[in-house]
Amino acid sequence: MRLLLIGFGTVGQGLAELLLAKEKVLRDRYGLKVKVVGIADMLKGSVYSTDGIDLAKALALVKSGDKLSTRSDKYDGDALSMIENAAADMMVEMTYTDIKTGQPATDHIRAALKKGMHVTTTNKGPLALFYRELKQLADEKGVRFLFEGTVMSGTPLLNLIRETLAGSTITEVKGILNGTTNYILTQMEEGLPYDDVLKKAQELGYAEAVPDADVLGWDALAKVTILANVVFDVNLKPDDSPCLGITEITADAIADARSRGKRFKLIGKVWRDGDTVKGSVAPEEIDLNHPLAGVPGATNALTITTDTLGDITIVGPGAGRTETGYSTLIDIIQAGGTR
Amino acid sequence: MRLLLIGFGTVGQGLAELLLAKEKVLRDRYGLKVKVVGIADMLKGSVYSTDGIDLAKALALVKSGDKLSTRSDKYDGDALSMIENAAADMMVEMTYTDIKTGQPATDHIRAALKKGMHVTTTNKGPLALFYRELKQLADEKGVRFLFEGTVMSGTPLLNLIRETLAGSTITEVKGILNGTTNYILTQMEEGLPYDDVLKKAQELGYAEAVPDADVLGWDALAKVTILANVVFDVNLKPDDSPCLGITEITADAIADARSRGKRFKLIGKVWRDGDTVKGSVAPEEIDLNHPLAGVPGATNALTITTDTLGDITIVGPGAGRTETGYSTLIDIIQAGGTR
Repeated sequence: MRLLLIGFGTVGQGLAELLLAKEKVLRDRYGLKVKVVGIADMLKGSVYSTDGIDLAKALALVKSGDKLSTRSDKYDGDALSMIENAAADMMVEMTYTDIKTGQPATDHIRAALKKGMHVTTTNKGPLALFYRELKQLADEKGVRFLFEGTVMSGTPLLNLIRETLAGSTITEVKGILNGTTNYILTQMEEGLPYDDVLKKAQELGYAEAVPDADVLGWDALAKVTILANVVFDVNLKPDDSPCLGITEITADAIADARSRGKRFKLIGKVWRDGDTVKGSVAPEEIDLNHPLAGVPGATNALTITTDTLGDITIVGPGAGRTETGYSTLIDIIQAGGTR
Repeated sequence: MRLLLIGFGTVGQGLAELLLAKEKVLRDRYGLKVKVVGIADMLKGSVYSTDGIDLAKALALVKSGDKLSTRSDKYDGDALSMIENAAADMMVEMTYTDIKTGQPATDHIRAALKKGMHVTTTNKGPLALFYRELKQLADEKGVRFLFEGTVMSGTPLLNLIRETLAGSTITEVKGILNGTTNYILTQMEEGLPYDDVLKKAQELGYAEAVPDADVLGWDALAKVTILANVVFDVNLKPDDSPCLGITEITADAIADARSRGKRFKLIGKVWRDGDTVKGSVAPEEIDLNHPLAGVPGATNALTITTDTLGDITIVGPGAGRTETGYSTLIDIIQAGGTR
């Protein structure tokens, strides 16, 4: 399987490391020989080689601060041009998420699908905004369009829903979809005010300098929208669901909830309501005896309500270099592996 | 796909109800048309028909207290004879677990595999005692040997490990594998002594009159043995692992743990220790911030430690009519469905 890696930041490098570490596992367990033929990155430059790129060398170059494009197999066009001209079987889209426009990732995905490549992406933008169009395009072309990393990072949630809960009907999915806010709420239980905890989270790199996407719930909202569309096969847009973040929660409210055996969590939720499907993001008081209550720090968790099993909860990492890289590896095995 | 149902108690009836309710889903989503050609039950009698058995009628007969064998398609032999003489594609083994001998389930499974049938079972005995032999027989015959229901009931744990955590290396699996003891420990946190809680659990039907298999940890030990053999491909027997139940835990010890931010859980565990694989069952103090701490009542949960994702925890039902019936439905789809 010939791969294109579009984006070679943290996630792309995480995937490259995994492809090196798992070469034997992929071959022995899944009959899968993976060759990366192209890497395109806006900052680090681009390389293309039909013989395959030496990933160990590429990782070393990037780690030493050099550009990929100092190599003899330097590619002069942009990512879109590489996708349009490359001979590859699958494109891995790992550029930075723009939740407002979904670009440039959406153009990359459209181009790859049109060429008949399988696609996996970790990018929430194209999914939250253009899921249905892209899925239809993939179906028309007879290729897989996969995006395990867009919700709960590498925690194999979408795979669980698609493959493992076979034959079940899902009525609701709800949970903790944003690690930054979960970390802040967990810390506020120690009695610290919101502003102090946010500052600490920013110092530790858990929250960004402009923390709006996390603390106002937008990141969770993008994931809620993806879940709604995938689980219930609808065409929800982010603006269709109410979204409330954690900025109004006080330390007093948290202490009060605690005294009643409850704990605040920022809950993203999608559910079937008669003939329609609804989504929401809002802080909720969760009973301490519910599995979601015990989810600590930057961990994510989702409870899936089914007709066959009642509630199933899955808890796992929601971010991370190896974890998100792994999400694309799951999808590569799905698209190309044999069992 | 022609099925034999061996055992038509709670689980068998749960499966029959699901097969009726999910007929359309199986056909539309998985291209799977299921026909039950034989049902054998020691108490309720046996029926066999190459045309297929009317499951609604069979369920009604059993619910009214009648025997299946009052029907015109009555079968006169025992379960083993039916397996040996039937024309079927898959056998569903749902007889009562005998953890000491694994019988009669093991003989049923051997006979079905030898005839080239796929097998799914909810029976822990054959798995804990004869996993390797049965797996090899299935591999020789080119058929599937599946047993999702033996650990965590229908919670799709084994499927998650086999299909969904593709490419990962697992180093440890630990969790709450017995709902009865988890219920007792949860209730004891209210300050009630062990004997009182056990009596209440027996009245509610959560614990059996002779509760040893649960409270001494044997049921969890059978599941630990199955997990060890499946996850690490070894040949552990129940006697190879230390096993301690919950009968020695006092209300005082529970209160003391609680004062230190801990909670007692009966933990079953398998892990790689150098070149060997070890298993154990014992009460453990779990930190209140660990996902296993929040698992209430009769619910089960397992934390899977991987090289790619760190810890993934799955929480779900550990027992129940529909839930355990569903475990065999997952396996039927695995063996016969197309995607």
